Amino acid sequence: MLAEIITIGDEILIGQIVDTNSAWMAGELNNIGIRIKQISSVSDDRQHILTALAEAAGRADIILITGGLGPTKDDITKKTLAEYFKAELVENKDALANVEHIFSRYNRPMLDVNRLQAQVPENCEVILNKNGTAPGMWFNEEGKIYVSMPGVPHEMMYMMEDEVIPKLKSSLKLPVIIHKTILTVGEGESYLADRIADIEDALPPFIKLAYLPKLGQVRLRLSGYGEDEAVLKEKIEEFAAKIVERVGNVVAAQEDIPIEKAILNYMADNNLTLSVAESCTGGYISHLITQHAGSSKVFFGGAVSYSYELKESLLGVKKETLARFGAVSEETATEMVEGALRNFKSDYAVAVTGIAGPDGGTADKPVGTVWVAVASADKTVVKKLTFGNKRRQNIERTAISALNMLNTLLHNSGK
Amino acid sequence: MLAEIITIGDEILIGQIVDTNSAWMAGELNNIGIRIKQISSVSDDRQHILTALAEAAGRADIILITGGLGPTKDDITKKTLAEYFKAELVENKDALANVEHIFSRYNRPMLDVNRLQAQVPENCEVILNKNGTAPGMWFNEEGKIYVSMPGVPHEMMYMMEDEVIPKLKSSLKLPVIIHKTILTVGEGESYLADRIADIEDALPPFIKLAYLPKLGQVRLRLSGYGEDEAVLKEKIEEFAAKIVERVGNVVAAQEDIPIEKAILNYMADNNLTLSVAESCTGGYISHLITQHAGSSKVFFGGAVSYSYELKESLLGVKKETLARFGAVSEETATEMVEGALRNFKSDYAVAVTGIAGPDGGTADKPVGTVWVAVASADKTVVKKLTFGNKRRQNIERTAISALNMLNTLLHNSGK
Repeated sequence: MLAEIITIGDEILIGQIVDTNSAWMAGELNNIGIRIKQISSVSDDRQHILTALAEAAGRADIILITGGLGPTKDDITKKTLAEYFKAELVENKDALANVEHIFSRYNRPMLDVNRLQAQVPENCEVILNKNGTAPGMWFNEEGKIYVSMPGVPHEMMYMMEDEVIPKLKSSLKLPVIIHKTILTVGEGESYLADRIADIEDALPPFIKLAYLPKLGQVRLRLSGYGEDEAVLKEKIEEFAAKIVERVGNVVAAQEDIPIEKAILNYMADNNLTLSVAESCTGGYISHLITQHAGSSKVFFGGAVSYSYELKESLLGVKKETLARFGAVSEETATEMVEGALRNFKSDYAVAVTGIAGPDGGTADKPVGTVWVAVASADKTVVKKLTFGNKRRQNIERTAISALNMLNTLLHNSGK
Repeated sequence: MLAEIITIGDEILIGQIVDTNSAWMAGELNNIGIRIKQISSVSDDRQHILTALAEAAGRADIILITGGLGPTKDDITKKTLAEYFKAELVENKDALANVEHIFSRYNRPMLDVNRLQAQVPENCEVILNKNGTAPGMWFNEEGKIYVSMPGVPHEMMYMMEDEVIPKLKSSLKLPVIIHKTILTVGEGESYLADRIADIEDALPPFIKLAYLPKLGQVRLRLSGYGEDEAVLKEKIEEFAAKIVERVGNVVAAQEDIPIEKAILNYMADNNLTLSVAESCTGGYISHLITQHAGSSKVFFGGAVSYSYELKESLLGVKKETLARFGAVSEETATEMVEGALRNFKSDYAVAVTGIAGPDGGTADKPVGTVWVAVASADKTVVKKLTFGNKRRQNIERTAISALNMLNTLLHNSGK
């Protein structure tokens, strides 16, 4: 079963917002065996929306549409859908009750434009929006399903989970798609490919292998397409096991999780605790860790020691060390990580200090110079990294490098 | 001048990665007066890529393609482009030199698949990839420009900035597009629209106004399209000034920046400093702040106090307070923010504590219960927020709410 996603909104096409909805929706649909043929982002333009709808309907059976449902003049998705289906807009009483309910909850007067939000094309089934005033709309037309949802991520997400996914599952006979991902750290894409070339060549035609490299990691993704879930699962697990046996030394996880989640799982299983001392990453490592449910079992927290003063007061870095070697130095990184272990009383700690840029570099310490330290009670590993002058990239790459180093330290400690 | 972006890769269509490249590229192209007609994400499938190329070429003059250039078997963009242009693949000596250079830099042996990366369709001009082995490719065919770049963000970004954007500017006569964004905090979309309805109705046809609502903020974006940059700028500034005059009480910034950057700018201009005490946001507020260049002028850092112990040791929250009221309480939030002011010696501080979920709630404190406190030496403001049970959403909404509250405190303090 094929679906397409159409996101509507000039804000995507001028680059003002990143379309995170599509990836999330694609993941949810894949989980129930619906493949995405294409994702298209189009402008708030009548003709363009009409064309995109027709093109998508020519390629797929399910068309999910987000965006353009707000109360203001630039939002034209609803009336364009009415035109596409040659339907009249009519006021829907459930949708109106929902708008009234939301306004009464916030104790604010309802405007005419808000009442208009309860109008929908007459041929649709309304999907309740528990988190906003714009109703979702489900259309069954000429053997195709069209679903229009708001572009606001949390409104769309609740609607998908509570209404759209269950309704798709109950109304369609869905095939099976299974993905299995192996996360590797510390080996390049072409080396991995070379090491497992014979395994890849032996894959049956219904299983595909993809290499997804990023920042010192490569994800190996096996995808199987078919009818029989048990057969697919068995075959995929068989090939995954062969790959893991071959390149096990660099495998961090055998599921599709980010490196910090692999670390959290491993540390939780082994009753280990973690704290951080972040300078140039400014909280990003902590954020990566704490975005995962259950992280509080492993993670104590730590310091975002942006200033010299906080490096001293929170981490016990010596004033002389900072004066003699500077904040970005092997010595400071070492004192930071050891101070974190001591003050925050965790089994492992990570510390980073560097010049994220775009300014602040010197001749001997150019922008992009970073020191990362990881430590346990037994061992401290410190490493210098050299990146470019793009601040956000430096923050991200530093964080991932630090996590890669922590992963290696954990696994080499043999705990 | 119209462009389209085609991103190629199954990993986007199964939702494994979010396509951040397109938004970035769209922003860069808009800056030089190129409008994006459509962004399409398609699979690593020969026929699908061929169709997408032809469709895009039917709508736009410039087609930018990312992804599918890796050395492994699932990457077929290059040979599909060769087929599309009916061209042969030939080894390019500059591209080969680059591959050899990169391998020698990392002191690793080159594999056959890496050498193949130096092959390109004979009708293209090679764009050097300083950060990877896959060359970029520039095609001029039948009045259209096609540019193929790697999907790895930093490889694509350097290539765009160093080569593609300058080449587009020098080879095209580009029209002018100007955007002006006003960031408002604390007023709903429909109320804003109602307050400025007459201004919106008076806009000339070459200026469009869009409302972009998100988490207690609404961005008002004026977009002007034309030939004469000076006239466009003047007209847009004229209408922006009218809007700001009308709704000035909720305006946080008159440029397209996120709320934390508006806060950083205001605090830097007024020589004010900031620290944080984060529990449930786990470093995310610090990350939002420190992703911006120059944040170290304002931001000292702070504590990610995930555990009870660190709330006590780093922030001086009293053991009795935690025992009596719990970590998620008005009292703890107040002690956290005041502890941050005291221990980290900043002019302002933000503290958050809450139950991010999806587990850990109780009858009187369900998942999504959050306390946010903002404070200066003169004033502490504490507020309870109630969200749903989605962890990442709760983290994001808590952070943005905290920043919105800090923004209001700053502006009400009249400093």
